[in-house]
Amino acid sequence: MTKIVLDVFGGDNAPKATVEGAVRALEKAKDLQLVLVGDKEKTLEELAAFSYDEKRVEFVDAKEVITNDDSPTEAIRVKRDSSIVRAMDYLNEHDEAAAFVSSGATGAVLTAAVLLLPRIQGINRPALAPILPTVKGGHVCLIDCGANVSPRALNLVQFAKMGSEYMKVQHGTDSPRVALLSNGTEDKKGSELGKEAFPMLKAEDGINFVGNMEARELLSGDYDVVVADGFSGNVCLKSAEGTAVGLFELIKQNIMAGGLRAKLGYLLLKPALKNVKKIMDYNDNGGALLIGLKKIVVKGHGASKAHSVCAEILQAKTLAESGLLEKIEGSFRK
Amino acid sequence: MTKIVLDVFGGDNAPKATVEGAVRALEKAKDLQLVLVGDKEKTLEELAAFSYDEKRVEFVDAKEVITNDDSPTEAIRVKRDSSIVRAMDYLNEHDEAAAFVSSGATGAVLTAAVLLLPRIQGINRPALAPILPTVKGGHVCLIDCGANVSPRALNLVQFAKMGSEYMKVQHGTDSPRVALLSNGTEDKKGSELGKEAFPMLKAEDGINFVGNMEARELLSGDYDVVVADGFSGNVCLKSAEGTAVGLFELIKQNIMAGGLRAKLGYLLLKPALKNVKKIMDYNDNGGALLIGLKKIVVKGHGASKAHSVCAEILQAKTLAESGLLEKIEGSFRK
Repeated sequence: MTKIVLDVFGGDNAPKATVEGAVRALEKAKDLQLVLVGDKEKTLEELAAFSYDEKRVEFVDAKEVITNDDSPTEAIRVKRDSSIVRAMDYLNEHDEAAAFVSSGATGAVLTAAVLLLPRIQGINRPALAPILPTVKGGHVCLIDCGANVSPRALNLVQFAKMGSEYMKVQHGTDSPRVALLSNGTEDKKGSELGKEAFPMLKAEDGINFVGNMEARELLSGDYDVVVADGFSGNVCLKSAEGTAVGLFELIKQNIMAGGLRAKLGYLLLKPALKNVKKIMDYNDNGGALLIGLKKIVVKGHGASKAHSVCAEILQAKTLAESGLLEKIEGSFRK
Repeated sequence: MTKIVLDVFGGDNAPKATVEGAVRALEKAKDLQLVLVGDKEKTLEELAAFSYDEKRVEFVDAKEVITNDDSPTEAIRVKRDSSIVRAMDYLNEHDEAAAFVSSGATGAVLTAAVLLLPRIQGINRPALAPILPTVKGGHVCLIDCGANVSPRALNLVQFAKMGSEYMKVQHGTDSPRVALLSNGTEDKKGSELGKEAFPMLKAEDGINFVGNMEARELLSGDYDVVVADGFSGNVCLKSAEGTAVGLFELIKQNIMAGGLRAKLGYLLLKPALKNVKKIMDYNDNGGALLIGLKKIVVKGHGASKAHSVCAEILQAKTLAESGLLEKIEGSFRK
C-alpha cells in the first residue's frame, strides 16, 4: 500500500475534478491509499456521485483554501486550517504518507513544502522540475522552473544532480546529458550566475555535463536535463507553453478563414494535429515534481481536469515506490 | 537620399545573399544609397551577376571577417580590417550614413556598435529589440533580448522608454502598453532586478506601464512592449522560436506518419499552414533593432537570405527616415 495525500481544494476545477481524479486513481491502482485534505462535508458531497473503496480513503478536514491572490508566506502562517497546511501537518506526522499532490496556487504549494517539510540532507534548495516532451519523441527535465528565483551556483549543481537521478528513474535515461540554460552555446556565455556555475558543473562527478545551451534547443531532444535558475527556467517554460498555445490558435484562425478547402483539409489532418496537441499538452505529461524534500511533491497544472489529477496521483505513487528519494539521498552522500 | 552601410560579409549566406539583397533593395528604393563593406574584389564578383545603379553604391574594402568563433571584444580590437569594424569607422566618419545592417555574429555586432558608436544622451545601455508577431495579428517589441546580460533597474526603465518610441514609430501604436517580464503577474513577483524596476517603471512619466507579465503572454497581443534583462529576454525569445520550429517539425512528422489521408489533408491545408509559418517566421519580420545609439543598427538573423537582407535594409532606411532617434532623444530630454 502506498499512501498519497491529495489537496482536494487545489486548482481551478476543484473539488469536482480532484474528487473525480481521486476516484479514478483508486480504481486504477488497487494498492493506493488516499488522504483527502479539505472541507470534508463538501468532499463527501462530491464523492456521493461515485462508488469507491472506502477502506482506502481517509479524510483530513480543512476549512480554508489558499488562493493565487494570497501572499504565500503570509497565507501559510495565517491560514492554518487550509488544505495545504493541513496536508503538510499530516505528511510530517505520518511517516507512511509518501507523497503530496496539489494543483493549487503554485507559490503556496512551493512555499509550504519548502518551509514545512524536511529536506534531503545535502540539498540547500529544493527545485521545481517539469518533464517536457521533445520533438524526437523523448523527454527533457527542466530544473528549476520557479522554486528559486535567485539561487546560488552551488544550488544549480544540486539541481543537475537531482534532475539526473529523476530522469534515470522516470525515463530510464542512462547517463542523462545535462546542459546549462544560457544565452549562447559557447563556454563563456551566460549570466553572472551561469558563468560561476559552469566550471562547477564541469568539475562535478556523477553527472554528464555537456555545456551551455540556448533556450531554442529546449525541446530538441539533444539534452535530458536542463539546469536553470527559477526565474529564467520559468520564462523558458512559459514562453514555450505560450507559443504552442498561440500557434494552435493561429492554425485554427487560418483554417476558419481558409474556406471549405481548409476545413476539409482540417478534417483529414485532425488525427495528426490532435496527436501533436497531445504530445505538447503539459496537462497530459504529469505534474511538475518539487525535488529535494523527504516526501514526493507533485504540483499539477492549475487547470488540471479529472484525468490529469488521476495521472498526477499515479505519477506520485510510482515515484514514491521507485526509490527516487533514496537514490538522490545516496548521490549526495558520495 | 538615405545612406545605409551594409556588412556584406555578415551571416551564414554571405556574401551571396547580402549582395543579392542589396541589389533588390536598390531596385525597390530609388532614394537609397548603399555602402558595401567587405572584401571588395569578392563583392564585385558577386555583383557581376546583376545590373544595378552603380552611382548609388560605394565600397569600403575590408579583408577580415569576424565569426561566431571569435571572442567579440577581442576580435574588435584585433581584427581592425574586419567588415564590422570598418563599417563602424565609416559610420563615425560620415554623418550622412544613417544606419548599419548586419547579419553577422550577434556578439560582435552588438559589442562593436556599443563600444564604437556614440550613444544617445541619457541612455546608459543600448538594447536589442526584435518585433514579434502576435496571435491577434499585431506586434510586440521585446527589449532587451541579448545586449545586456546583467543590466540595472535604471536600464530597464530606459528600455521601456525606447521600446515605446519604437512601437509608436514602427507600428503607429498609440500609448504602447509596457509590461515587465516576470515569473507571475502579481506586483510583488519577479527577480531581484524586476522587483527593483517595478516601482520605477510605475513612477515613470511618458510610458504606459501595465505591470508584470508571464512569458506565456509574449505573443498574446495583450502587450506592445515587453521589458526584460538581456538574459531572460533572450531565453524568452529563443524558447518561443524553438517551440515554433519544433511544433512545425512535429506536425510534419505526424503528417508523414498519417498515411494518404493525412497527406491529402496537408495538401488542402497547405495555404493555411504556410500562412501561419509566414506569420511566425522571424526572418520575414525584419531584423532586431539595437536601440540607444546615434545610428540605426539592424541585426538580421544569421540565416538571413536575400529577401531578408533586402527587408532589413529597407527597414533600416524607413527607421532612419522616421526620426525615431530624434524622438528617443527628445523623450530623454524631458
